[in-house]
Amino acid sequence: MTDYLQIWEDLGLDIDRHNTLLDILPGVYQDVYLSQENRPEGMKYFDFVVSEIHGLRVKELVEHKEKGGKVFGTFCVYVPDELIIAAGGAAVGLCGGTDFSIPAAEEILPRNLCPLIKSAFGFKVSRTCPYFEVADLVVGETTCDGKKKTWEIFGEHAPMYVMELPQCKEEGDKELWFHELYRFKDKVEEVTSNTITSENLIEAINIVDARRAALQRLFDLRKSDPTPISGLDALLISQIYFYDEPVRFTNQVNELCDELEERIQKGEGAFSKGTTRMLTAGTPMAIPHWKLHNIVEKSGAAIVCEESCVGTRSLTGETESKGDSLDDLLESIGERQFKINCACFTPNDERLDDIIDLAREYKIDGVIQYVLQFCQPFSIESVKVQQALEKAGIPSISIESDYSMEDVGQLQTRIEAFLEVVG
Amino acid sequence: MTDYLQIWEDLGLDIDRHNTLLDILPGVYQDVYLSQENRPEGMKYFDFVVSEIHGLRVKELVEHKEKGGKVFGTFCVYVPDELIIAAGGAAVGLCGGTDFSIPAAEEILPRNLCPLIKSAFGFKVSRTCPYFEVADLVVGETTCDGKKKTWEIFGEHAPMYVMELPQCKEEGDKELWFHELYRFKDKVEEVTSNTITSENLIEAINIVDARRAALQRLFDLRKSDPTPISGLDALLISQIYFYDEPVRFTNQVNELCDELEERIQKGEGAFSKGTTRMLTAGTPMAIPHWKLHNIVEKSGAAIVCEESCVGTRSLTGETESKGDSLDDLLESIGERQFKINCACFTPNDERLDDIIDLAREYKIDGVIQYVLQFCQPFSIESVKVQQALEKAGIPSISIESDYSMEDVGQLQTRIEAFLEVVG
Repeated sequence: MTDYLQIWEDLGLDIDRHNTLLDILPGVYQDVYLSQENRPEGMKYFDFVVSEIHGLRVKELVEHKEKGGKVFGTFCVYVPDELIIAAGGAAVGLCGGTDFSIPAAEEILPRNLCPLIKSAFGFKVSRTCPYFEVADLVVGETTCDGKKKTWEIFGEHAPMYVMELPQCKEEGDKELWFHELYRFKDKVEEVTSNTITSENLIEAINIVDARRAALQRLFDLRKSDPTPISGLDALLISQIYFYDEPVRFTNQVNELCDELEERIQKGEGAFSKGTTRMLTAGTPMAIPHWKLHNIVEKSGAAIVCEESCVGTRSLTGETESKGDSLDDLLESIGERQFKINCACFTPNDERLDDIIDLAREYKIDGVIQYVLQFCQPFSIESVKVQQALEKAGIPSISIESDYSMEDVGQLQTRIEAFLEVVG
Repeated sequence: MTDYLQIWEDLGLDIDRHNTLLDILPGVYQDVYLSQENRPEGMKYFDFVVSEIHGLRVKELVEHKEKGGKVFGTFCVYVPDELIIAAGGAAVGLCGGTDFSIPAAEEILPRNLCPLIKSAFGFKVSRTCPYFEVADLVVGETTCDGKKKTWEIFGEHAPMYVMELPQCKEEGDKELWFHELYRFKDKVEEVTSNTITSENLIEAINIVDARRAALQRLFDLRKSDPTPISGLDALLISQIYFYDEPVRFTNQVNELCDELEERIQKGEGAFSKGTTRMLTAGTPMAIPHWKLHNIVEKSGAAIVCEESCVGTRSLTGETESKGDSLDDLLESIGERQFKINCACFTPNDERLDDIIDLAREYKIDGVIQYVLQFCQPFSIESVKVQQALEKAGIPSISIESDYSMEDVGQLQTRIEAFLEVVG
């Protein structure tokens, strides 16, 4: 990737440290991904995206900026890509998924904080991720205490904007969020110097809906037995969803789905028919956090669905427009978003229903609740999820972990024991 | 306290476990409080309140209920006692301050959660606190992730109501909170079967304002050198503020203040003139969490102010009424509350200003930031507080702790080292 050196230097990256980071990935990717058997041909594109992780896409974003475009870094499915795209901006997810950047964060932030936040913050302060550096505006939200308060310090290092996501889903909350969508629209217009019209917003909604529909199509195909694609591969696609160019990504996912449909017709799969099927539920897994999926699938079970922001919580259906005015469109974006049942809301009983429904739709044998350490919303909610699963007679296990590899042996033992019970 | 056995039995307490709890307190109180020298006479009342910790006040509340009154348990200064009192209800703070009840909580809740929440939750599920059992309604709020999500599980064990506190202080947030005040008013009316009128609300506001003014008077007197009262004693009064009968409490605090004024005139104090003066800033210290104050004052320094909900964040001045209609009164309650600069808000720079102002007003030598373990809002905000204090040239130390006694030796060493530097 030496072709990109100039770009990384221009972005102000710490080149030595960045090289160290890039040196780690290929070996890990070989072990975790390329060692898998029965992979669909269509995964080649996503392998390529990973091989170019800080390369081609960053180059595209830099070129977009050279043409006067703006880049918005985001962390949450509640931040509406539609508004960014409507104004000619590019949206890239900035969640951090590696412990490589955590020590830099812990020089400033408390340690008792979820690894996703620390990893992201660490990338910024150690200048080791080009996506953070290419962003003209970083858009945070008030989903959890950890993020909400970290943005205040993040703002000392980058241009930062925070959306206030309410904590309940009552009428007053919807009003507040609708107001936030308008405020964000104004901010996007200010940053891009472009006006968001109902025309360009409809176009952007169509792009984002098509991307979501492609991922939903992929998820639906995973309901087959044998599952045509491994959980690891599907997770990777859900991760790339957040930063790839959206139209190309949509096409590639649909092409892959064509292939998977053929596989299903032929009865072929990533695992053999009858393999134990797992649903994971909980916190997002940002790239390259593949630990749980790797342990589960190397233990012989298949993960067929992720109830997660990097998974089904990105899939809240088409935006149902109530009309073509900006008001109508913003309201319909907000209404679609309010179907995302994040643990940041209270009460959040719809999420319990979602998990039970997914368990049935995907014909799973067991649920693995996965919570990143120190994520209080999902950690506390896991108590209610476990109760609901018990009541529904669905076996489950709760795992708390982080980005380190220290607990891999212990997790493997627990997961293998769980698989023996449900398998 | 055997006189109260019948009451505790009627409330359904686990009597054996409760006896164990009550057996612990006198020895601790002797060591921490009664061993202090130069205590004001007026502390006798508060010593008495502690000696009757689960006795007299509980009896009063039971009698209040026998007369048809209702009891509301609360956890936050954002829950307006005024509305409860206006409807003839009694408000009692339910925050938990002891690790005695934490193991019961950890059977259900995750361990990585602040001790205050675990202690409170543990009291409820182990039936060892009569205040939880006497409450007709427990009123929570969405101040932090830990509380917000715990209420969902708490609600399985007690009648629970949650107020949605917004996360910012913009116009839309004020509207949301104003709406929440109205919703709470309706709930209080429903529970008490009494109507809140502008007349009884004005009366209640006066009661609550007078209580706040008395505590403010006490705090103002602590600005003197020598301080007329120890930090330990002042902390105790701030703790009792949350559950004592408000009018009696107000009178007792004012009586104590009369005595303290005399002491000041005579140049007498709890410590000698010139003693190192400390401000604590951070999370609340619920009764009987006296650990930090005990360590600091037994090390020879005086704590002269607590920037905390159990402290200055309860002291946001008189309610400035804009008129006598219910609308006016509710708005003025909300406006007063919005001066409370809790770390649950973002941004919360006003709190940085508050701390610097307090440091100057109370002529302190150093600030001890105190954060309960796993309290992410205050823990992350402590980074900004430290920056602000450094900029202002005020020495500070940051301490994270919990209710256990395991870290006392280590804290003592750190605090003594800090006192040597600033003393």
